[in-house]
Amino acid sequence: MPTFSLEHLESFTKNILLKIGCPEADALAATKVLLAADLRGVDSHGVARLSGYVRLWEVKRINPTPHIRVVHETPSTAVVDGDGGLGLVVAPYAMQVAIDKAKIAGTGWVAVRNSNHYGIAGIHAMQALAHDMIGISLTNASPLVSPTFSKERMLGTNPISVAIPADQQPPFVLDMATTTAANGKLEILQRKQQEAPYGWIQDKDGHATTSPNGVRDGGALLPLGGDREHGSHKGYGLGAVVDILSAVLSGANYGPWVPPFVAFLEPHPNPVGEGLGHFFGAMRIDAFRPAASFKSNMDTWISRFREAIPVEGQERVLIPGDPERLLEAERRKNGIPLLPSVETDLKELGEKLNVPW
Amino acid sequence: MPTFSLEHLESFTKNILLKIGCPEADALAATKVLLAADLRGVDSHGVARLSGYVRLWEVKRINPTPHIRVVHETPSTAVVDGDGGLGLVVAPYAMQVAIDKAKIAGTGWVAVRNSNHYGIAGIHAMQALAHDMIGISLTNASPLVSPTFSKERMLGTNPISVAIPADQQPPFVLDMATTTAANGKLEILQRKQQEAPYGWIQDKDGHATTSPNGVRDGGALLPLGGDREHGSHKGYGLGAVVDILSAVLSGANYGPWVPPFVAFLEPHPNPVGEGLGHFFGAMRIDAFRPAASFKSNMDTWISRFREAIPVEGQERVLIPGDPERLLEAERRKNGIPLLPSVETDLKELGEKLNVPW
Repeated sequence: MPTFSLEHLESFTKNILLKIGCPEADALAATKVLLAADLRGVDSHGVARLSGYVRLWEVKRINPTPHIRVVHETPSTAVVDGDGGLGLVVAPYAMQVAIDKAKIAGTGWVAVRNSNHYGIAGIHAMQALAHDMIGISLTNASPLVSPTFSKERMLGTNPISVAIPADQQPPFVLDMATTTAANGKLEILQRKQQEAPYGWIQDKDGHATTSPNGVRDGGALLPLGGDREHGSHKGYGLGAVVDILSAVLSGANYGPWVPPFVAFLEPHPNPVGEGLGHFFGAMRIDAFRPAASFKSNMDTWISRFREAIPVEGQERVLIPGDPERLLEAERRKNGIPLLPSVETDLKELGEKLNVPW
Repeated sequence: MPTFSLEHLESFTKNILLKIGCPEADALAATKVLLAADLRGVDSHGVARLSGYVRLWEVKRINPTPHIRVVHETPSTAVVDGDGGLGLVVAPYAMQVAIDKAKIAGTGWVAVRNSNHYGIAGIHAMQALAHDMIGISLTNASPLVSPTFSKERMLGTNPISVAIPADQQPPFVLDMATTTAANGKLEILQRKQQEAPYGWIQDKDGHATTSPNGVRDGGALLPLGGDREHGSHKGYGLGAVVDILSAVLSGANYGPWVPPFVAFLEPHPNPVGEGLGHFFGAMRIDAFRPAASFKSNMDTWISRFREAIPVEGQERVLIPGDPERLLEAERRKNGIPLLPSVETDLKELGEKLNVPW
């Protein structure tokens, strides 16, 4: 696969966003979020999505110059209205509000409505780390997932991310879809027409299937657990909590009403809220105990788990965030690989908007 | 199975707790928490554990007259020291601190150290509901679970509970272990010597097994997901977050250092903290939006999910908390069934402490 330097992709992405009317600072912020996905190996959420955002702008479902603002607040909470802006811009703003609240009240919790897809969950949670805070980032998303016992798509892959600072060790960064497998993994199987393991997807009748086309053909992704016997009601419950905190608490659309990411699908004709929703949290470590002793204990936690006796044939236990961090180091050095189809798509986007590739 | 009235079991439990020296109010609070498990069908966490708590008191690992107190606080946070008391008493105290903080700061977040097993997670989260707040309850527990790729027991079943109020609909109450199956389910299979499904447990070498004795024979429970292909790294990540918020943030023991619940196993000789840890949160709904419109939207959320088209052969989609609520109504009416072995155990406990059964 051809690789591209971070600088090249950053500059191209930023120029595209400027071209659709984003202010300089917003284009910069959104570029940083999008490229973080490519660096960390979540290729489905990086520049591969850039033309999708542009198509949403073309049909006037993304506002390039939003007036993002706090519409309600208490000492430790706020509701942010994203004014239909890019989630990639709304999310860093809202997370900063959470961090500012935490500086004074100990913690900050921000529910966001009227936003759009915000890229990878993890990068927003990680915004808290430099402040010696624990960061939390949740979002709902277009319905692709059926709750246990149903064949209807009711929830998005609704991710949960929690970022926790350590001292000598790298931070602990959980960033997970509440489904067995993220949609991006299924897209890879579809491209290669390989079978999916049982427990990832069901067909349109709600039966377990290994066909990589199951979701495309009217089926659904399955909540973490896969089936009732293996705890899919827990994955469904977690996805539901993410949906409720992100959208019912903020006044965004929830469940099957969440607007689709793709421009060729129309939003629900009778929305129950505004746009899609996110939820962010920031907890100042020293609102609980001195940051130095906490971070030293986190080092102990992390090294003890790294030393846990592996099963024969496995090298060692990983800490959440390890794979992404290793990939980021590698890609910063050697460049970011893009599928030929993604490269073509970006080149065409550049030609359309008169932005050099 | 013989059934017993709530009143009978409450009175017996309270009298046992008074006998080991608990003050009246503490005995009452602990009884309420313990019986909530029996009512809601989490039989492994109810009166079946009473003699286990007494044995911990006998070996001086539970303090019947703890001085439970806030040792550090900010407007929205607190750390509570449980002084070695019953988790059944420490938890309602700490959750009340979270609720009181939320009344003023919008949200309240309380990390607890130096506590013991706190019963079912859900009942503590539900304490927030009457205040039009969202309640969150987490706890770590004795190590029984191996992280993905390991054969060593490093985490407890570390539950997550989130309780969310609605208006006409009953509240949404998620209460889940971060393992595929809770330990109580495995105990039922052990009793009947029935096979466990693949994905619940592994043997002492870390291989998947269906033997219900796998954990007893040195194996481990598996994180939600079961194996790497089905997302066990996500269940492990969630269990890890629960451990860190409950214990690293509070100064309790974490990971493999968490003291065992059973009195015949000694705590770790070199603890890294004090007792075991919990984490509680309370978020005032109207710190985000008016409680009435939120609860009305929750009614819409809940009824829409109940109406999701079921898979053929399934009656309908359940909302988290449905099964427990239905069981509670039934058991309040018809009594609480106890296994003969549990009844015998309680009778012997009564004889030993001179408390009439």
